[in-house]
Amino acid sequence: MKAAVLGYGTVGGGVVEVLFKNKVAIASRVGEEIEVKYILDIRTFPGDPFEDKITNDFNRILEDEEVKIACETMGGLKPAYEFTKSLLEAGKSVCTSNKELVAAHGPELLKIAREHNCMYLFEASVGGGIPIIRPLLECLTAEKIDEITGILNGTTNYMLTKMDREGSDYADVLKEAQEKGYAERNPEADVEGYDACRKIAILASLNYRKTVNYEDIYTEGISAVDSKDFAYATELGKNIKLLGMCKENGEKKYAMVAPFMLDPENPLYSVNDVFNGILVHGNMVDKVMFYGRGAGKLPTASAVVSDVVEEARNIGKASGIEWSEEKVTLNDKNELVFSYFVRIGGTAETSSYKELFADAEVLVKDGIDGEFAIVTREMTEGDFLEKFVRLENAVKFIRIK
Amino acid sequence: MKAAVLGYGTVGGGVVEVLFKNKVAIASRVGEEIEVKYILDIRTFPGDPFEDKITNDFNRILEDEEVKIACETMGGLKPAYEFTKSLLEAGKSVCTSNKELVAAHGPELLKIAREHNCMYLFEASVGGGIPIIRPLLECLTAEKIDEITGILNGTTNYMLTKMDREGSDYADVLKEAQEKGYAERNPEADVEGYDACRKIAILASLNYRKTVNYEDIYTEGISAVDSKDFAYATELGKNIKLLGMCKENGEKKYAMVAPFMLDPENPLYSVNDVFNGILVHGNMVDKVMFYGRGAGKLPTASAVVSDVVEEARNIGKASGIEWSEEKVTLNDKNELVFSYFVRIGGTAETSSYKELFADAEVLVKDGIDGEFAIVTREMTEGDFLEKFVRLENAVKFIRIK
Repeated sequence: MKAAVLGYGTVGGGVVEVLFKNKVAIASRVGEEIEVKYILDIRTFPGDPFEDKITNDFNRILEDEEVKIACETMGGLKPAYEFTKSLLEAGKSVCTSNKELVAAHGPELLKIAREHNCMYLFEASVGGGIPIIRPLLECLTAEKIDEITGILNGTTNYMLTKMDREGSDYADVLKEAQEKGYAERNPEADVEGYDACRKIAILASLNYRKTVNYEDIYTEGISAVDSKDFAYATELGKNIKLLGMCKENGEKKYAMVAPFMLDPENPLYSVNDVFNGILVHGNMVDKVMFYGRGAGKLPTASAVVSDVVEEARNIGKASGIEWSEEKVTLNDKNELVFSYFVRIGGTAETSSYKELFADAEVLVKDGIDGEFAIVTREMTEGDFLEKFVRLENAVKFIRIK
Repeated sequence: MKAAVLGYGTVGGGVVEVLFKNKVAIASRVGEEIEVKYILDIRTFPGDPFEDKITNDFNRILEDEEVKIACETMGGLKPAYEFTKSLLEAGKSVCTSNKELVAAHGPELLKIAREHNCMYLFEASVGGGIPIIRPLLECLTAEKIDEITGILNGTTNYMLTKMDREGSDYADVLKEAQEKGYAERNPEADVEGYDACRKIAILASLNYRKTVNYEDIYTEGISAVDSKDFAYATELGKNIKLLGMCKENGEKKYAMVAPFMLDPENPLYSVNDVFNGILVHGNMVDKVMFYGRGAGKLPTASAVVSDVVEEARNIGKASGIEWSEEKVTLNDKNELVFSYFVRIGGTAETSSYKELFADAEVLVKDGIDGEFAIVTREMTEGDFLEKFVRLENAVKFIRIK
C-alpha cells in the first residue's frame, strides 16, 4: 500500500516518522505494509533520510495509481483545498490534521469522497493525538449528546496553567510561550480563541451532522485574562480555562468559546499545560472525558496515521462520516445560563452593585487594592449583560461553569 | 432488526431503557430501528412496561430467526457461557457487560463468533460507559501501547475518595458504601481487587492480542489501606488509588493490581468517586486518558448498546476483535521499579532503617504516634522486598507511581 505525505513540516515529518517507526505494528493492523512513496514539499531537504521521496510536483502524486492514500499536513486553505479536492476526485483517500480546511470545507470534501468511493478523515484536526472524532461517531452511538466542552488549544492552556501556578502576567507568559515555540510569533489564532473556535465548530457539526459555521460562534480569547483574575480564582478555589463548548437544549443549539472559571469537580479543571481535554455529556452515559496531548509532532501524527489505517482497511469504500452542508442555526448565546465573576472598582460598602446584583457573594482579596469582586447567582447571559452595562465602575467579568 | 436481552437486572433493564429512549437516534445510526423482542429472566415482572417481552425460555430466543443480536447482561459464568456459545453457534451476534465471562472465555467465544460470521463484543466489560475497548483497537492504531494503567473499579474508588476527603476509616467507609448500594454485601470482588484484575486482564489481552490469564496477575486490594496511610499521603501531596496496570518493557510483559500513591501530575490523581479513568501510554501519542462512569445502570447499558449498533451494522460479518487463546507469559512483578512509602514503628532516630534504606526521605506526621514513615528511592520490587522483610518494626508499605 503506497501513501503520500503532503507537506514536510512538523506534522508531516511526524507522519513519516510514525509510519516508519511503527511499521510492523501498523502492518499487522492493516494486513499489509504502508510505504510512503512521495513527500510533497516546495523546499529541499538535503541529507534527510527520506530525501529520495521528496518531490515538489503534486501531479506526480495525483497521477500515480499506486498511491491510494494522501496525508495532507500542509495546513491552511491554499493549496490544501485544491489538492485535497483533486486527490478525492481521483479516488484517493485523504486524511488531514488541517482544521482550517475541515472547518471551512469539510462537508463538501466529504461529499466528493463519497461520490468517488474514497474517504476523507480528520481525526487529528481536533485534540491532536486524542481520539475524539472516532469515539464521538463510532463509540458513543447509543447516546444523544447534549453538550461537548473542551480545552481545545494547548498553547493557551499552557499559558493559563503558568499564570495560575506562578501568578505571572499574560504578557510575560506569552513571551515565554513564544520563546519555547508553543506560541506563534503572531499568536492571534491561539490567544483570541480562533483555533478553539474552528475545533468546536467541527465537533458541533459532527454531533449535529450538519454544518455549524465557525464564523457564527461567539468567540472570546484569553488576552484580557490577568493575574488579578487568577488571584481571585484561587481565592474561590477555582481555575480559569479557555473552553470551546456546544450545547443542545431541546431544539435550541448553542456554541461559544470563552475563558471560564471552573470548579475542581469539573474534570477539565485538572487538564493542565499543553494537554487538551474534551468532556462529552450524553443523556445516558453522563460525563465522558478524553484527555491527552492536543498538539505536538508525534501525537498529532499518530492521529493522522490512525486515519491512514482506517483508509487502508477500506480502499474503494465511501466515507462513513455524515456531515451535510445544511447550515445549523445557532441560538443567541445570551439565552445561556451562567453565574458570573465580576470585578468592580471601589469598595463593596460604597458600591451600588447591590441594586443590580442583590444576592451576589462579595469577594475582597488582600493585595488587590481599589476594587472588589462579586459572584452572581445563575442568570441568563442576556439578563446579566443588561445589568453589567449599568454597573458603575465595572471592570470586567468571567463566566463560571 | 430484532434483539434479545438476557437478564433483566440492573444492566439488562438499562439496555432496554437506552434502546427505547434513544430509539430514533440509534435508528439513524444503524439505518433501521432496533426492537427488543425478548427479555430473558426466570423472574416475573408484573406491571412492567415490557412485561409482554419477558420469557423464561432461552430456546425461544435461540430458535427465533428474527433475533440477530443478543445482549448478555446476566453476569457470572453459568448459564451465561453456555447461552453465549449457543447463540454464537446459531450465527447471532452477542454483546455483553460480563467481565467474568470475557476474562475466562473471551478468545474461545471470539473464535466461535468468527466461525459463524457473527460478532462477540464487550465494550461494557471494562470501564462501564467509558469507550475504551473500541478506542484501543480502532483509534490508537498507529501506536505501540506500552502501558495501560487504570482506576477500573468504581466501588473502591468511591471508598478511597471518601477516606481521602473525610479521613474516615476503611470499615466505616465500606459500611456506608454498602448502605448506598455501591458495594455488595460480600464486597470481596471489589475490595480485594478481583474485579479490577479481570478488567486489566481483558485490556492486556486485547493489547497483546493473546491471552493474559487473570489468575496470573498479582492482585492486592484496598482492605489494608487505613486512615493513617491517607494522613501521610496528604502530607506528601499524594493520593491513594487502586490501580490495575499492564506494562511492556521490550519483550517483557507485566501486570498487577494494587493500591498506589499518585502525584497530582498523574491524570488519574483527579479521578474521584465512582468514576473510572484509564490511562494509556503509546510510543508516539504519549499519554491518553479515558474518563467516565465505570459502572451504573445507564452508562453501562450505553456501552452495551454501542455494541448492538456495531453488530447491527455488520450482520453476517465475522468479528474484528483479535484475541487468540495463546497464553501470554507474564514476567515476575518483582522486576518492576517503584519507589515505596514505608511505615515503621518507633522513631526515625532510633530505627535501624538507614542500614537498608540509606537515602530514604523521612516523614513524621503530627498526630500519628509510635511510628514514622519513609519514602525510598526507586528500586526493583525484588530489591525492595528483600530489604523490607529485614526491616525491624516494619508496619507496611504502599508503592508510589
